[in-house]
Amino acid sequence: MCRFLAYVGDAIFLDELVCTPPHSLVRQSLRADEAKVVTNGDGFGIGWYGEREAPGVYREVMPAWSDENLLGLCANVRSHLFFAHVRAATGTGIARQNCHPFHYGPYLFMHNGQIGGYGQLRRAMEARLPDHLYAQRKGATDSELLFLLILARMEMGETVPDAVSQVLNETLAMMHVLHIQAPLRFAAALADGKQVHAFRYSSDKRAPTLYLHHFETRGLLVASEPLVDDHTGWELIPQGTVVRFDAQGHHSAALA
Amino acid sequence: MCRFLAYVGDAIFLDELVCTPPHSLVRQSLRADEAKVVTNGDGFGIGWYGEREAPGVYREVMPAWSDENLLGLCANVRSHLFFAHVRAATGTGIARQNCHPFHYGPYLFMHNGQIGGYGQLRRAMEARLPDHLYAQRKGATDSELLFLLILARMEMGETVPDAVSQVLNETLAMMHVLHIQAPLRFAAALADGKQVHAFRYSSDKRAPTLYLHHFETRGLLVASEPLVDDHTGWELIPQGTVVRFDAQGHHSAALA
Amino acid sequence: MCRFLAYVGDAIFLDELVCTPPHSLVRQSLRADEAKVVTNGDGFGIGWYGEREAPGVYREVMPAWSDENLLGLCANVRSHLFFAHVRAATGTGIARQNCHPFHYGPYLFMHNGQIGGYGQLRRAMEARLPDHLYAQRKGATDSELLFLLILARMEMGETVPDAVSQVLNETLAMMHVLHIQAPLRFAAALADGKQVHAFRYSSDKRAPTLYLHHFETRGLLVASEPLVDDHTGWELIPQGTVVRFDAQGHHSAALA
Amino acid sequence: MCRFLAYVGDAIFLDELVCTPPHSLVRQSLRADEAKVVTNGDGFGIGWYGEREAPGVYREVMPAWSDENLLGLCANVRSHLFFAHVRAATGTGIARQNCHPFHYGPYLFMHNGQIGGYGQLRRAMEARLPDHLYAQRKGATDSELLFLLILARMEMGETVPDAVSQVLNETLAMMHVLHIQAPLRFAAALADGKQVHAFRYSSDKRAPTLYLHHFETRGLLVASEPLVDDHTGWELIPQGTVVRFDAQGHHSAALA
Repeated sequence: MCRFLAYVGDAIFLDELVCTPPHSLVRQSLRADEAKVVTNGDGFGIGWYGEREAPGVYREVMPAWSDENLLGLCANVRSHLFFAHVRAATGTGIARQNCHPFHYGPYLFMHNGQIGGYGQLRRAMEARLPDHLYAQRKGATDSELLFLLILARMEMGETVPDAVSQVLNETLAMMHVLHIQAPLRFAAALADGKQVHAFRYSSDKRAPTLYLHHFETRGLLVASEPLVDDHTGWELIPQGTVVRFDAQGHHSAALA
Repeated sequence: MCRFLAYVGDAIFLDELVCTPPHSLVRQSLRADEAKVVTNGDGFGIGWYGEREAPGVYREVMPAWSDENLLGLCANVRSHLFFAHVRAATGTGIARQNCHPFHYGPYLFMHNGQIGGYGQLRRAMEARLPDHLYAQRKGATDSELLFLLILARMEMGETVPDAVSQVLNETLAMMHVLHIQAPLRFAAALADGKQVHAFRYSSDKRAPTLYLHHFETRGLLVASEPLVDDHTGWELIPQGTVVRFDAQGHHSAALA
Repeated sequence: MCRFLAYVGDAIFLDELVCTPPHSLVRQSLRADEAKVVTNGDGFGIGWYGEREAPGVYREVMPAWSDENLLGLCANVRSHLFFAHVRAATGTGIARQNCHPFHYGPYLFMHNGQIGGYGQLRRAMEARLPDHLYAQRKGATDSELLFLLILARMEMGETVPDAVSQVLNETLAMMHVLHIQAPLRFAAALADGKQVHAFRYSSDKRAPTLYLHHFETRGLLVASEPLVDDHTGWELIPQGTVVRFDAQGHHSAALA
Repeated sequence: MCRFLAYVGDAIFLDELVCTPPHSLVRQSLRADEAKVVTNGDGFGIGWYGEREAPGVYREVMPAWSDENLLGLCANVRSHLFFAHVRAATGTGIARQNCHPFHYGPYLFMHNGQIGGYGQLRRAMEARLPDHLYAQRKGATDSELLFLLILARMEMGETVPDAVSQVLNETLAMMHVLHIQAPLRFAAALADGKQVHAFRYSSDKRAPTLYLHHFETRGLLVASEPLVDDHTGWELIPQGTVVRFDAQGHHSAALA
């Protein structure tokens, strides 16, 4: 499992959410409260949108808590939309190519969860990728693969929620055929530079936590855990939900 | 392109070949003489056989010339059969999973060369892997993929030279269908703990160099470049050749 | 704080103690039971004696739990005397140069503890180093500095226990002058290739834990924590004690 | 030796100088034209000023040519004043703490050169640091040490050129006493967020190259080598010179 956060709103320095809060994401890398595993030290990454269409991405295999580059970067980069993720590996190797967020063109994606029986499913899932996205496969994680499968459907004109629903349903169908009992858990966020879609789902109703928070200044945050001790104003997103949000507000819907 | 060496013979400390010679592999990482690219600084790896069936492997993304761990390891590990490799990446990312030697069970494999048009071929080549070897795919290089394809044929009972020849021929056939003009170049070594098969081949007759050297003590070496300035006693392996060697001697044959 | 182990005895594969036991050092890197901090993920290192006088050393900034090189190395290196250490940094940066064990000539040293007020003391302590050991200062930790100060006294002919006692006493005297209240804690091991001296000390009587264990085969181990759930046969070394041990047995004495 | 560049002017994306030009700094990391050593692959760093007083700094031990984070960062960070540096180590270890630029408060510093006989001088030079800067010593390089010594004089009220001159003169005096024949070479840049001082000096009149370039848009650059093949408009800074420059223009003077 992992921990992550996604922010949209007035441009702020990344450290205001990633490093400074009492229960910041950097802090969660060392000691998460609501995660299946406490330590999220198998690499991390940040992605942020600036003036260009493609986001900046910084990924590293070291734990977030000990990386001075991360502090320097977050203290000096300001963004209106950014992702941050700390990783707890679930079987695939430690490499930057396996760290989140993943990026492709203007899109960022990150994930907290796991596909049950991924080892058995990987080949059949990769076979569904169109050639140009197959060629984008750089690592070995289930997360990168889900991202590429979702992109494939978006390129065909599907909305983000539809693309995600279809990929999850297809994956569940494959798991069913192979009699895989382990659940499909999926807390994730996908951005295009203007808005974010956040998802909370699990086939066993034990989805990784995901909270929504409105800042007093113009801004919304989705995060695996509240960044402060007082959870007032941190709304747990219901399981089976997609939340679309930008600086203006948010809209929740059930996942199809 | 890359540089490598493979040794079989009386057990010696790895540093006698990897670090100490005037034109050692560590030196070649900074300044190769006969390579397409001078600098081989995109990671490195060593693999060695000791008392267990599976070899020890140490792979790192830093340049070999600046890694103190490599010096410490090579000065204190003695082996009768070992591989060492310094990498110059040809398009795939910098990660330990993309560094040579690759290993699987008792086998070690390393490669210097490139599949022309690999980006177009990758998918079709990966599709030929049996499931259990598909699941072993950890990186994105053409080299790891060739290794897994060769293993697949070995598991079916083919000899190492036959397996390699068939994989090269299949690859050439796929390149032909796609009208790929870039060559298939393949200098490689594969070991099983007892003997080494070394290969030198290119579809355009410009195969990466590969030399055979007999030591005065009991031992044979195959290396991309002589490790000393005086090339006397360093025999350039002809293109289109496979050399099988162990501590007792070597046998050369044409690749089918 | 950190966790470590030191073994002397019949030559065994390193993984028998470092990787395999239910509460191995690799496991302790992720979840220590008796440490001030639970996570020891700020790098690690191993040092082992083989056929040469100087030990082999492998140090890395990644957490031990995620390093495949460590597994490969420990599965294929056999030694009669080795150290292993997982680090939890106490203020100094993440760098291989700050990872344990430290080595100099035939000596290995590792440490779990902290000098209270080290930032204030560092300069005065470094000033006590003779020139040739001052030049060996590669990192910034209190641990490396203690090692060099101990070496300086050993080079003057002092026994290891005397050298350690004198360095601790000098450090305490400096702390006293500066009215530093924070304690001096020191669990450490020093080897010369034949025997190990292990120390457990704290100025506030809250020394880091250190256990002694005899194997049924010929071998002794000192470790921060028992490597198995059943602590029978794991003897807590009393505070203020030095234990000298080799393959033949051990001898305990009070620190002067 | 190393290669570096320092820019002041209209805010531009870092990649316009660091990554994109035909002879960019990233390119120079793999193949420098005018350096004593061709390969500058022992780590790199960038430092840039944004909205805060302290600059952002990103330093890494990998070669610049293979770091995807560097590309992502430089493509998405815009700055009116930034430094970039690729390192070729001269005897001190590979660690982020030994990578340039060094930073302290609002200051950035980077260096290309070497103090002759540094191993003999280090201790005496470190002894001249005031306590609070001694405590800032994180690595082992001569470059970091020169920076701290210069800062010490600046804190006493000396101008940047005076501080640098005095530190160089003191160092030369120490070298003279110890009969050190090897030269003191010093190409360097120091910034405070508003302006840059660049220096080119050597005791043997073979100072590392350093060029000044005016952009057509408002901006000045100092760089170890021209970033394009056509050297028109790239002015070699004379040896023994300090150049002060900001967005408005530059002023050259002889080093005292």
